[in-house]
Amino acid sequence: MAQKPRIPKGTRDFSPEQVAKRNYIFNTIRNSFERFGFQPIETPSMELLSTLTGKYGEEGDRLIFKIFPRGQKLRPLLASLNLTSDILKEEIGIDKPSHELSSETLDAMSNVLVSSISEEALRYDLTVPFARYVAQHQNEIEFPFKRYQMQPVWRADRPQKGRFREFYQCDADVVGSKSLWQDVEFVQLYDDVFTALKLVGVTIKLNNRKILSGIAEVIGAEDKLIDFTVALDKLDKIGEEKVKEEMLSKDIPQDGIKKLQPLFDLSGSFESQINSLKTILGASKEGLKGVEELEFINTAISNLELKSATLELDVTLARGLEYYTGTILEVSAPKSVQMGSIGGGGRYDDLTGVFGLKNVSGVGISFGLDRIYLVLEALNFFPETVSKNTDVLFINFGEAEALFSLKAIKELRQNNIKAELYPEAVKTKKQMIYANKRNIPFVVLVGDEELKSNTYTLKNMSSGEQFKVSLKELISKVK
Amino acid sequence: MAQKPRIPKGTRDFSPEQVAKRNYIFNTIRNSFERFGFQPIETPSMELLSTLTGKYGEEGDRLIFKIFPRGQKLRPLLASLNLTSDILKEEIGIDKPSHELSSETLDAMSNVLVSSISEEALRYDLTVPFARYVAQHQNEIEFPFKRYQMQPVWRADRPQKGRFREFYQCDADVVGSKSLWQDVEFVQLYDDVFTALKLVGVTIKLNNRKILSGIAEVIGAEDKLIDFTVALDKLDKIGEEKVKEEMLSKDIPQDGIKKLQPLFDLSGSFESQINSLKTILGASKEGLKGVEELEFINTAISNLELKSATLELDVTLARGLEYYTGTILEVSAPKSVQMGSIGGGGRYDDLTGVFGLKNVSGVGISFGLDRIYLVLEALNFFPETVSKNTDVLFINFGEAEALFSLKAIKELRQNNIKAELYPEAVKTKKQMIYANKRNIPFVVLVGDEELKSNTYTLKNMSSGEQFKVSLKELISKVK
Repeated sequence: MAQKPRIPKGTRDFSPEQVAKRNYIFNTIRNSFERFGFQPIETPSMELLSTLTGKYGEEGDRLIFKIFPRGQKLRPLLASLNLTSDILKEEIGIDKPSHELSSETLDAMSNVLVSSISEEALRYDLTVPFARYVAQHQNEIEFPFKRYQMQPVWRADRPQKGRFREFYQCDADVVGSKSLWQDVEFVQLYDDVFTALKLVGVTIKLNNRKILSGIAEVIGAEDKLIDFTVALDKLDKIGEEKVKEEMLSKDIPQDGIKKLQPLFDLSGSFESQINSLKTILGASKEGLKGVEELEFINTAISNLELKSATLELDVTLARGLEYYTGTILEVSAPKSVQMGSIGGGGRYDDLTGVFGLKNVSGVGISFGLDRIYLVLEALNFFPETVSKNTDVLFINFGEAEALFSLKAIKELRQNNIKAELYPEAVKTKKQMIYANKRNIPFVVLVGDEELKSNTYTLKNMSSGEQFKVSLKELISKVK
Repeated sequence: MAQKPRIPKGTRDFSPEQVAKRNYIFNTIRNSFERFGFQPIETPSMELLSTLTGKYGEEGDRLIFKIFPRGQKLRPLLASLNLTSDILKEEIGIDKPSHELSSETLDAMSNVLVSSISEEALRYDLTVPFARYVAQHQNEIEFPFKRYQMQPVWRADRPQKGRFREFYQCDADVVGSKSLWQDVEFVQLYDDVFTALKLVGVTIKLNNRKILSGIAEVIGAEDKLIDFTVALDKLDKIGEEKVKEEMLSKDIPQDGIKKLQPLFDLSGSFESQINSLKTILGASKEGLKGVEELEFINTAISNLELKSATLELDVTLARGLEYYTGTILEVSAPKSVQMGSIGGGGRYDDLTGVFGLKNVSGVGISFGLDRIYLVLEALNFFPETVSKNTDVLFINFGEAEALFSLKAIKELRQNNIKAELYPEAVKTKKQMIYANKRNIPFVVLVGDEELKSNTYTLKNMSSGEQFKVSLKELISKVK
């Protein structure tokens, strides 16, 4: 019986048109990465499970796709089937027979079991493999190392609209330099890519981890930095009052929250906000350092000028707070599209420490391919020619005509024209319908007469016009 | 404690230089595919396990990388730990306690266990996912459908020199047409790609499944087609006598083997071999049909002319006999390199039948990326500029100079020049060494004097020459 053809949940097939549109975005990003001096690397889809676990938090670990070992790796497990409950008992400390256990306990046991027999897993992001790469190849690399990487990652997430189990990440990072010029360049790089995509009107939001630490310090909530920033991050969504309520509920002192008032009232230009922050953070050395860094980046960008994006200070921006240590960046789609973030990044210290290479500071950004795709689609911003496939189809009238046509096709291809012959000498109408459905702009008809006179009848499929042309004319008309 | 950074066996990291060289091959192939009218599709890395199993033979099934389901999928297994031996007993028919079982039995049990809890697997090749895609999207596709696909595949093979667990396949196929013009085009396509790669001297070997069936028929070994072709396929390696011995040992009749003599004596041009085959296969309708197909392709190719490859008839060629039904193709690297096949393909019927779409004939070819890479490397055929990264590095002398430099860099990038600033104002010597190690051909020095005179000192790193230039001159010199 035939199988019903389908694919796993959360994965996608891409049609020729979709591939062409995705490649348009990939190529634009790649072109900018390379003009900015970034070099490509690629890492394997599979990493050792031990390379990945413990790097993405508990939830992240759960979402790593583990791979089955080859058959013989399961032998010890099977050979000890009677022992298994004891092993699990030791690991998790339970001594009921397995059919009496709750599903939570069974899940915990599952994880132990999986970890004990799986050794490899699919890449969860590009950052950890990059850190592993840098540590592993440190002797072949010239630092500072500017690398880019555009590869798929996999997450065993619950599939939902716009969230997939396999998706591409496009990352550029520099490691081995603390220079703020790099942070400046990443702002330029975002501007460069989105300008090249003709996506005018994006906002590049800038913040600095040190600002957030500084604020927490001056309001006496240093030990509550995460609670504080999580609440602050919601300002856009839930408004000032609710943010204050949430902070209060997290035991951030009332008088500290009062000190925050100037922060809620921040407005005006980048410069005037910087000046307010200097006042607010006067008592925090770290906070002032953060202000200084923001100021450096803003001054440089003002001098260098962005092509189409706007740089904005956003003290509520806190993405990836766990590992960012300086600059925090996020890009918002133009306001006409409801999409949220289409890219983000920041500066981190000690990326590679866990792999034995200490003191490597880095900064990097990422582009959200799927969301950029949706934005370009929503705004109808893909170039009209992006999914143009074949330029010209030769109608097949029989063996002699086909051979004559293939000789011309060879010349056309030599001239970089995408040309093909309809493979069978079926009814002309059927071949014309095919050309139409595939949006092929030109067809060539070679019949008896053309064969004798060594000419070609060229038909423009949109205007319906027909011309009798020589091969040379054909090439120049279709090109 | 720090983890030792390493990757799974049989997988690879690719350095910037390797990525550049691989992309050179990919881009060349893609360019030919598109000029020949093929359109790209992409399928997910993961397919349902049921889509893949049973398509690659028993050995293939074993080599499919299975993916662990999310935690809760293991619950039933764990909850029934005491039952498991019974389940396995039912499935495999054994009733010893598991610790008394042989490793073969344990392997068989492993497979049952894995299949019972794993539902997804990594793509093993591009052909089955393509068949699944065509059946699934048949209503969106215009037939004949010319698609190409360049994506990684995974095999849990024992890693060895030149054999990897993750590697790319580059396939082009046409489905929905039985026209032999397609087979002709694939010969041209191979020629086009290898000519574009400047890999002169490849041989395209051509055979036809019907020839092999015909020969088996005339020597009375129709029921031993596989044994017969496996033996014949070894002619190059083990010679005529050993081939005959092997056939005899497989119960192919002595007088049948005698009838093969003209086959062993085949030589001369494509045409003269065709004539011998007509004699040998006179009694086989199917065999003569195969000869006719070979002749059609050879006549067309003689008329159209290949650019650099040679087309050869090879009646011993039998690759993928299980599914090829007509044309069989294989490409050999130039004789100066010991590499064997660098590509292959053929015509098949009923590719999509298993997914419920009957009567779809197809023909396709594949390029062996890793081997082509090794051949180009061995012959030193990669273009010198292939891994050229940054064109020009600006030396960093301090804040004002850096800002001045970044303004110039912005202009250079606008002119498609790959330019970067050394991020820190460290000693000039260190920056120069960096430029040297990265093979950057030009550096620009902007010091106090240049800043005042609005000029740039451009240094050619290979000749050591230095010029003082304007921005406009800089752009034209570096471009």
